[in-house]
Amino acid sequence: MIVGILGGGQLARMLAIAARTLEVDCRILDPQPELPAAAVATCVRGAYDDAAALDRFAEGLDVVTYEFENVPVASAERLAARRPALPPPAALAVAQDRLAEKRFFGRLGIATPAWAAVGSRAELDAAVARLGLPAVLKTRRLGYDGKGQIVLRAAADVDAAWAAMDGAACILEAFVAFDRELSILAVRGRCGETRFWPVVENHHRAGILRRSVAPAPRLDARLQAAAEDVARRVLDALRYTGVLAVELFQQGDRLLANEMAPRVHNSGHWTIEGAATSQFENHVRAILGLPLGDTAAVGHVAMVNLIGTLPDRAAVLALPGAHLHLYGKTPRPGRKLGHVTVRGEDAARVAAATERVLALAGGT
Amino acid sequence: MIVGILGGGQLARMLAIAARTLEVDCRILDPQPELPAAAVATCVRGAYDDAAALDRFAEGLDVVTYEFENVPVASAERLAARRPALPPPAALAVAQDRLAEKRFFGRLGIATPAWAAVGSRAELDAAVARLGLPAVLKTRRLGYDGKGQIVLRAAADVDAAWAAMDGAACILEAFVAFDRELSILAVRGRCGETRFWPVVENHHRAGILRRSVAPAPRLDARLQAAAEDVARRVLDALRYTGVLAVELFQQGDRLLANEMAPRVHNSGHWTIEGAATSQFENHVRAILGLPLGDTAAVGHVAMVNLIGTLPDRAAVLALPGAHLHLYGKTPRPGRKLGHVTVRGEDAARVAAATERVLALAGGT
Repeated sequence: MIVGILGGGQLARMLAIAARTLEVDCRILDPQPELPAAAVATCVRGAYDDAAALDRFAEGLDVVTYEFENVPVASAERLAARRPALPPPAALAVAQDRLAEKRFFGRLGIATPAWAAVGSRAELDAAVARLGLPAVLKTRRLGYDGKGQIVLRAAADVDAAWAAMDGAACILEAFVAFDRELSILAVRGRCGETRFWPVVENHHRAGILRRSVAPAPRLDARLQAAAEDVARRVLDALRYTGVLAVELFQQGDRLLANEMAPRVHNSGHWTIEGAATSQFENHVRAILGLPLGDTAAVGHVAMVNLIGTLPDRAAVLALPGAHLHLYGKTPRPGRKLGHVTVRGEDAARVAAATERVLALAGGT
Repeated sequence: MIVGILGGGQLARMLAIAARTLEVDCRILDPQPELPAAAVATCVRGAYDDAAALDRFAEGLDVVTYEFENVPVASAERLAARRPALPPPAALAVAQDRLAEKRFFGRLGIATPAWAAVGSRAELDAAVARLGLPAVLKTRRLGYDGKGQIVLRAAADVDAAWAAMDGAACILEAFVAFDRELSILAVRGRCGETRFWPVVENHHRAGILRRSVAPAPRLDARLQAAAEDVARRVLDALRYTGVLAVELFQQGDRLLANEMAPRVHNSGHWTIEGAATSQFENHVRAILGLPLGDTAAVGHVAMVNLIGTLPDRAAVLALPGAHLHLYGKTPRPGRKLGHVTVRGEDAARVAAATERVLALAGGT
């Protein structure tokens, strides 16, 4: 069997490793020359909007999937006309436009921070007047890892922020004084079977995920159920197949949806060692119509992203419970080069080892 | 970094998958056309005793290892003169000759079944007279998965057995009425750091490993310590680096060494999902001089080999705690095509799911 993946980064690499074990080959389409997935999958260079490249790519595939949500929807639909493309292209359309996403959450009754569409300077002024400050101005499209976002703290920030957006369609979001950031990873099979991993607590640095802790500390059944309810609404509304991540803000007892990712997600990397079944294996199982694996956590787990530079490999591996995942990428500032997972039976010991990983990796 | 592996079967495949995560490439030397490792490593076709092929293969490698013990010792030594070859070639020399292995165990004070060297019909008669019957006649070299072994139950069997060996040098082993078969997996780092996985109980069918259970049922600290003592003597005597397996017979309180494998071992496949660190990751860590990972079991685990034919993939994956590993091999009677690992927190549930795997895979 052959799975096609649009995008050949580290997510595709880890998907291909999981697929290999099931005797499933992966074929990647990506225009980039340096591809982390190249070591474990067949790579086809081509633009995502090149119809001829897409058609050649689709030849002989059993199913098509994506490692990132900014695949052109028209391309996903072109592929979907030839082969099953999962998750459905409609999930991409929602996830790649913050306005569509906010409206989608609203239609499903999923709480979000207050927001307003901003297509002009006048609309921005109106939005600021309505939502108040601080607030976050975000481009509707192509934002990730904190890019395309500006925090407006005072009225004096508005001019510069609007100028920086250079006419791009935006939304303004009320700034949420959240207690913490969480995410829920879920997987839905072709026939609607759905499973959820335990909710994860996430910590960012300069807009990039730095650390995830799973299960989230102080996770109780009510919080888990509330997060699952959010994910289930999204999955069912889209008749979704595959892994989905929803990023959440926790504010007291409330969960507010921040954004969704219709793919395997950085905050789910801990599942490789830390869950009965990894997000990568379950995504492959789901899109191939195979039964899903158990999603329970196995002990306590933390994941630290390695960003920009790599720590000493031996020093990391000497830490109890540590596993190192490197992506084969050339180091560059701000680039995710790998991650470290720490797993153990004792939460305090895992936390202590995680602090040491963070120190080796250049601080929290 | 590049690790060279002699042999490109499923063991090399699983080593290469583990190495990939550490950003380590693997290069395989193997004369066969169909190689399970080909999907995840660079493969060089060449005979193991082709000096020019060995020299080309060694070019640029950081370390050389093997996935099977019947690599010609002269070839391993030729490679060792150019690159670190680990485990040391002396371990191959011991493991590929049952007579050398028995003498080696004897020198180390490791108990074995009674045995006698058999180089002629007269020596066979003398050995039968000394050890009694039943006994097992084994070729000194190239036996595996029950091949090259004949059980002698009565004096009338001796003629046919000797004829079947066709002049090959043999040893005769007293038949041990053992309680069960066990194995101990161990790993030793370049600087002598040593770790042991929990002892495993093994069940064979037609001479081929069918099922392993880890940790072995009724495993107490004394039994674990006795098995570790056997493995430690072997590791230290050989100044070993890498993973080692020792197969053991348990007879009451006694452990008798059956044979050793200087490599990752089929009875350690359960460690991928079932141990804090897999045998494959720790072998790679060890031969690269990296710190070793924790070897504790995580819950209860069983492994079932898929031999000759493959079960329905979806039926296997629907079982709780089941993970399927396929090797990309063409089915043939008696061939190991993959394995299933079942992991869970409850031993009885794991055992029940394992019975269902065995039923799907064609019986115990």
